[in-house]
Amino acid sequence: MLSVNQALVQLMAAAKPVLPIQEINLATALGRVLAQDQVAVLDVPPAANSAMDGYAIRHAEAQSANQSAGPAKPLPISQRIAAGHTPIALQAGTAARIFTGAEIPPGADTVVMQEDCDASDSSVRICELPEVGSNVRPQAQDIAAGQLLLHKGHRLRAQDLGLLASQGLSQVPVFRRLRVAILSTGDELVEPGQPLGPGQIYNSNRFTMAGLLTGWGFEVIDLGIAADQPALIQSKLSEAASKADVIISSGGVSVGEEDHVKAIVEKLGKLDLWRIAIKPGKPFAFGQVMDKPFLGLPGNPVSVFVTLLIIARPFLLACQGISTASVPVARAIALFDKPGSSREDYLRVSSGADGVELFSSQSSGVLMSTSMSDGLVRQSPGQDIHRGDVVEFIPYGVLD
Amino acid sequence: MLSVNQALVQLMAAAKPVLPIQEINLATALGRVLAQDQVAVLDVPPAANSAMDGYAIRHAEAQSANQSAGPAKPLPISQRIAAGHTPIALQAGTAARIFTGAEIPPGADTVVMQEDCDASDSSVRICELPEVGSNVRPQAQDIAAGQLLLHKGHRLRAQDLGLLASQGLSQVPVFRRLRVAILSTGDELVEPGQPLGPGQIYNSNRFTMAGLLTGWGFEVIDLGIAADQPALIQSKLSEAASKADVIISSGGVSVGEEDHVKAIVEKLGKLDLWRIAIKPGKPFAFGQVMDKPFLGLPGNPVSVFVTLLIIARPFLLACQGISTASVPVARAIALFDKPGSSREDYLRVSSGADGVELFSSQSSGVLMSTSMSDGLVRQSPGQDIHRGDVVEFIPYGVLD
Repeated sequence: MLSVNQALVQLMAAAKPVLPIQEINLATALGRVLAQDQVAVLDVPPAANSAMDGYAIRHAEAQSANQSAGPAKPLPISQRIAAGHTPIALQAGTAARIFTGAEIPPGADTVVMQEDCDASDSSVRICELPEVGSNVRPQAQDIAAGQLLLHKGHRLRAQDLGLLASQGLSQVPVFRRLRVAILSTGDELVEPGQPLGPGQIYNSNRFTMAGLLTGWGFEVIDLGIAADQPALIQSKLSEAASKADVIISSGGVSVGEEDHVKAIVEKLGKLDLWRIAIKPGKPFAFGQVMDKPFLGLPGNPVSVFVTLLIIARPFLLACQGISTASVPVARAIALFDKPGSSREDYLRVSSGADGVELFSSQSSGVLMSTSMSDGLVRQSPGQDIHRGDVVEFIPYGVLD
Repeated sequence: MLSVNQALVQLMAAAKPVLPIQEINLATALGRVLAQDQVAVLDVPPAANSAMDGYAIRHAEAQSANQSAGPAKPLPISQRIAAGHTPIALQAGTAARIFTGAEIPPGADTVVMQEDCDASDSSVRICELPEVGSNVRPQAQDIAAGQLLLHKGHRLRAQDLGLLASQGLSQVPVFRRLRVAILSTGDELVEPGQPLGPGQIYNSNRFTMAGLLTGWGFEVIDLGIAADQPALIQSKLSEAASKADVIISSGGVSVGEEDHVKAIVEKLGKLDLWRIAIKPGKPFAFGQVMDKPFLGLPGNPVSVFVTLLIIARPFLLACQGISTASVPVARAIALFDKPGSSREDYLRVSSGADGVELFSSQSSGVLMSTSMSDGLVRQSPGQDIHRGDVVEFIPYGVLD
């Protein structure tokens, strides 16, 4: 049996990012993946600016004005600098009225916040002189031209769009969205909205799979249900291979006589059946249909959910060109006891202020457990979990 | 000064969900918010089915067959039941060939997995008899008809779509997407792609704001940049109030002479300036333009990011009709020391296997800190953080 990690290493080795590059508008680039390193072309800020509304001064001058006997002498106000307007050099012995974000005039080195001043329209007395350099944001404090901003293979989040915008970029090179074909197999499956016959169940996997894949930024090609008929499955799989970059099926890949997908994938390409030490979700198949990667998930809805998140996701992200699909490691306090098993177990838990609680049924048949839960606790093989333990917690959001 | 919690309580009290309800296709409902409770109409599974490929038997009969002297007696195979096909009652003294997901025939109570049998086409000898009820998934194990599945106000994730699909639902009632108008104010702002004049900077807030709001499922109405001219700001804000459910501006709400937004909002409605004990992001304004809620964020890019995530997000989700905007609580081990301050500090951190590391500059001017980080550590007022402490960690994904 393969460990989860062994399975991931094999899958990642097989992931080939081969997607074409598109140049798109930055405003539409949320969730897309950079196809080239992005290097800063500008200093940010481009010139020193004020962090406060106040008065820009030469610190040494103000210091001597404040050190003479009696109350501090007022400095005449020689200019007024609003954000977005260009200052002139600060006249000796004067102060400049300045606003947050406005450029520091040449010759000034410090901004005194207005709360520490006593000002009229024409002059300002500094009541409390801060240290030299105070309230000045130096040029290039945020970004220096030439600096690497974001790597090729980075998936763009809201703050990354802001960062690229601060460089004046309006277009970015990204990889075309990965096209993933999904297929649900099984004579017992009926689409929602249709009447349910005896022995039949509604197809939920299609919706779980399409939802996750859409959330990861892929284009989903939904091939619907293939009944357990070899000719039909073969035609669906050929169609998938011609349209998609990756093919995923749920169901039909175990060794039973009614599992036709395996034989057809072997005919059209190749297939390895893996026994992965993961719970829920043991049976998993990896292969090719024509020259396209094929992932065969179990048919069980909870197993589909967990294997898609834990096994398939890193592979798919790599195919999309994402360079590091690592998930931030978070922890939580277990509010339950659970002995370990021989497999890596992904427990569905709900999260509260005190820690995480186990959903009552962890049976892989119980789809409610995924919907009632906030995330997964990863339980390593042989790891006994005791109430109060700090355990690894994967809120679903970090797998988005 | 308001604590973060006091500010949130005030905001949440002001949030009025008033959105119309739409009936949409389940396949397009990812991220949408349920407008009505969803109650189960079907048992899932609708009838007991097999968890394995194997043989369905009456346990008592097999037990007596196996207890007689010599090797276990084979049972004749009286039917073959594939998933999606209807069984007949199990004939006394026989076994039914059965496949994973297939309905258990009336009269059978146990499935023996095929690995524990020695079978020909016509009969099967049970080598190892499991406990009664083994490998049978009982009717309604996952869901019982009449049970509450998902609350009104629940935001639909992939697994929730799967759950509703398992009930045969093809349409769901959801709230119309919240329309949020965004406005960036400041004479110094230039849109990316345009040439940069002296004293000017590129507008990054627009992209950060639009990205976050889009990720939360809202419809963004982008009003662009309003230069610091009262008539222009007034016309933009009136337009926003007529088109959007909520209005957000970045910049222009502090007390400076160049901050015109405050005066215009007060003219068109009302405005309270709040000093919230949050870092970064202290200045924050809340009010109304005509009858639409108005949120005035600071102008600083990192403050915009943090106040939008921490202060504005819960309010906006409530306006969208989401009943609980609580974030799963995760923790991490701090790999740094940092003394507490008088404010609630949201530290930008990167996450590794051993814990979380502080981004070197926590200055609110440094937009790179948001882009280089994986999430926020919440540091309470007065909380000193020491290397090795278990701290509250908010991976960005959980705020999606």
